[in-house]
Amino acid sequence: MELKVKDMDIATGDVQVVILNKKDAQEMDLHPMDRLVVKRNGKKTMAILDIAESKKAVPPGSIGFFEEVLDALKAHHGDKVRIEIADKPESVTYLRKKLDGAHLSPKELKIIVQDIVDNKLTDVELTSFVISSYTRGMNMKEVAALTVAMAETGDTLKFKKYPIVDVHSIGGVPGNRTTMLIVPILVAAGCIVPKTSSRAITSPAGTADTMEVLCPVSMSMNKLKKIIDEVGGFIIWGGAVNLAPADDKIIRVEHPLSIDAEGQMLASIMAKKASVGATHLLMEIPIGRGTKVTSTKQAKHLRRHFGELGTALKIKIKTIITDGSQPIGQGIGSVLEARDVIWALKCHECAPQDLVKKSLWMAGILLEFVGKARNGQGYKMANRLLTTGAAYGAMTRIVEAQGGKMPDPDKLKPAPKSYVFKSEKAGVLQCLDNIAISKSARLAGAPIDPDAGIYLHKHCGESVKKGESILTIYARSAHKLSYAIQTLRKMNGIVVK
Amino acid sequence: MELKVKDMDIATGDVQVVILNKKDAQEMDLHPMDRLVVKRNGKKTMAILDIAESKKAVPPGSIGFFEEVLDALKAHHGDKVRIEIADKPESVTYLRKKLDGAHLSPKELKIIVQDIVDNKLTDVELTSFVISSYTRGMNMKEVAALTVAMAETGDTLKFKKYPIVDVHSIGGVPGNRTTMLIVPILVAAGCIVPKTSSRAITSPAGTADTMEVLCPVSMSMNKLKKIIDEVGGFIIWGGAVNLAPADDKIIRVEHPLSIDAEGQMLASIMAKKASVGATHLLMEIPIGRGTKVTSTKQAKHLRRHFGELGTALKIKIKTIITDGSQPIGQGIGSVLEARDVIWALKCHECAPQDLVKKSLWMAGILLEFVGKARNGQGYKMANRLLTTGAAYGAMTRIVEAQGGKMPDPDKLKPAPKSYVFKSEKAGVLQCLDNIAISKSARLAGAPIDPDAGIYLHKHCGESVKKGESILTIYARSAHKLSYAIQTLRKMNGIVVK
Repeated sequence: MELKVKDMDIATGDVQVVILNKKDAQEMDLHPMDRLVVKRNGKKTMAILDIAESKKAVPPGSIGFFEEVLDALKAHHGDKVRIEIADKPESVTYLRKKLDGAHLSPKELKIIVQDIVDNKLTDVELTSFVISSYTRGMNMKEVAALTVAMAETGDTLKFKKYPIVDVHSIGGVPGNRTTMLIVPILVAAGCIVPKTSSRAITSPAGTADTMEVLCPVSMSMNKLKKIIDEVGGFIIWGGAVNLAPADDKIIRVEHPLSIDAEGQMLASIMAKKASVGATHLLMEIPIGRGTKVTSTKQAKHLRRHFGELGTALKIKIKTIITDGSQPIGQGIGSVLEARDVIWALKCHECAPQDLVKKSLWMAGILLEFVGKARNGQGYKMANRLLTTGAAYGAMTRIVEAQGGKMPDPDKLKPAPKSYVFKSEKAGVLQCLDNIAISKSARLAGAPIDPDAGIYLHKHCGESVKKGESILTIYARSAHKLSYAIQTLRKMNGIVVK
Repeated sequence: MELKVKDMDIATGDVQVVILNKKDAQEMDLHPMDRLVVKRNGKKTMAILDIAESKKAVPPGSIGFFEEVLDALKAHHGDKVRIEIADKPESVTYLRKKLDGAHLSPKELKIIVQDIVDNKLTDVELTSFVISSYTRGMNMKEVAALTVAMAETGDTLKFKKYPIVDVHSIGGVPGNRTTMLIVPILVAAGCIVPKTSSRAITSPAGTADTMEVLCPVSMSMNKLKKIIDEVGGFIIWGGAVNLAPADDKIIRVEHPLSIDAEGQMLASIMAKKASVGATHLLMEIPIGRGTKVTSTKQAKHLRRHFGELGTALKIKIKTIITDGSQPIGQGIGSVLEARDVIWALKCHECAPQDLVKKSLWMAGILLEFVGKARNGQGYKMANRLLTTGAAYGAMTRIVEAQGGKMPDPDKLKPAPKSYVFKSEKAGVLQCLDNIAISKSARLAGAPIDPDAGIYLHKHCGESVKKGESILTIYARSAHKLSYAIQTLRKMNGIVVK
């Protein structure tokens, strides 16, 4: 059937969509979400059908094109095109298998993941895969195959170097910027550290947001390879590179349903490690209020699965379970966290000691793990690399290679409006609640305003005098500041006893 | 945040959708499929967010409105509106519960079904409900609650009459137009028969398509009530009335995944029976090649579940398992089937005896079931109502009440192009394959061309001479005819041995 193109002036950003009037669709026995082959002048593309009820949207005899379809066919408003019903992609057969509880082979999972990446699945199909993987469950063989498929269907970095080290924290603890100390320490020790990080999703800042205070965090794969050759490491935003692109598309479906499918979480994390060619990975699982993992039992269960997956992927993994009961470091929010990191790298007196110690401990584990330090000597070696300025030097090279310049930490100023929470009584600071602190910092403006956030003067367990400062909130406007203050109060984020 | 409305000139037909530019969405920390409250001049509505990557589709500072949103807010291109993030509807909590394997209460299912009907769920959410109901399974309590919820969230017919009789066949057998004989026989016996039927989906004709040859099959609820009062029965297209509207929305998701969730199938059928207030239901499960149910074991399993569901819904159900190995009647295709039915009602010599006998048997069962006939006397009573012309009279009143006129069957002409399949040898007709016959009739033009289809001169088990006619295919064009012939040959639809 020949149809006239109507430019709908709308884009999905991924799936190709065409629209037919209900009358035409009925006549051709077509249904919403059917796949069509659309042909024009020898060009053809596949699109998903939507149905317009009204003549106004798409009149009979016309076919509405979303931007992606116009581009694919280099078509314009008014052009004539022909359509045919297309077969469902092979992957739909495998979705069905999973739906009925079968285990999928690596080949089948690869075909599904490739179609996810190529936007060939409708929302209904993609959701069915995500949900049935969740409700039917995946065994470790499937998780490993899914991980490999996710890595292989994206860009990958391949270095003929050894060891290639990575570090990952299952988030939830504000501050916790250990990565920005561990990476330069390891680079200073001669390791290759291609670190991709996330931006804040529900937290006041992600490692990528904090790193962005110092330098750009989005760059091409070629640039990244060059940086590794020149300085041995980088810290970039994972979203800027096309590593394991299926992951974002799966998360887009999981997010509105708050699904936390363990298999997909494991695959999501490990696919990115496989994409950068990691040989050694230190995995941190913090446990505390507001963290992703909330019990030791769950953490140990995850540790076992990470281990199994590591074996399947030939990545050596060490998993540590850490105390996530309170924020780590003093600054919370991109600028305040970046200042903490630079103070720490400069061994400045303002450096937050909890952050420094935790980072040295983790870096030490990795140094022993990759064989750079003898057993029991890792912490000492990490400490030496820090105190001699070697780590600061490595970070400076990384920041400059990424196109930035190490700032004077004293010039990293927090936002102008501030409010100091003072203790109403003398006692011991019992609790700095992760959830309340995060929420308050976000209401103060983080992560959109990089200089907004919270600065902790005290940590839990420290004694406080009456009237002594516990924390300061920084915001760009009085309005945001007031929201942040009220929320921290309402949520009882600070407890002194 | 204040935004300028852009009329996207596009409609979904159901869900309200608004579009923001990616930049605005990031700034407001909004994600695709988030729910927004959109406000204008004291009016407000809830919409699902989509994100535009390009400025061309929706520039920053603007918000793209689909038609449904424009209508809801009575807004126009260029108007100013405000948005807020909305809470997820309560039903999403219950979707999550099902996802995690819990059983849902009648109240929870009602809230989900109401939101499905009100288009408040995204495709991802709706799919998650359908898939997890399928993979987690539903117990009979849930199926009963789902059925009630589906009936209650649509229009319902309530008659203070008794008995209200319904008949249903789990499709797959071409021809099988028993309903159009059973309904007038029962009406002639004084039963109330509010029969809603389907159109062809994968078959050459549905009861609604065949009935439409005689009279309109779409009318208002008020008209339907009037028809019941006046003549006691009707045969209409279920799609024209708003009975159990959740069903179509669920099928829209099941269809592309070829899901056949038993619980939802049971609920889908029974909700419509509950909607019309049926007190007695005869359920036919034909078994044969190409039928929906293919084994006696599966049929018996379904029969048990229909029974349980009937008890829960207070509908008396009798289930019969029938021979679906070959087409019933001689005509296949709307006009040819309508002609069979009228010949049968007129006791004409051309009436297909298999169709007549099966209809009398089923009508007889129902007459005994509702107490109109004594045990063992049902068939005889049905036969008397047919042969005396009482059923023909009832059908005439029904057709006229629906706005049609009983045609002279000889004036119901099949399509002009025809081809006669003749036996290549003498023997016994072993097989008329349902799937091949259906496919061939559809390629000949059914159900879009009501006069296209197939007329059977012989049924299985009859002996044929060499050169004797087995069937005739009718089509409107030589092209369609040739397709139909080739397919029937290729599929070996006719076997003489």
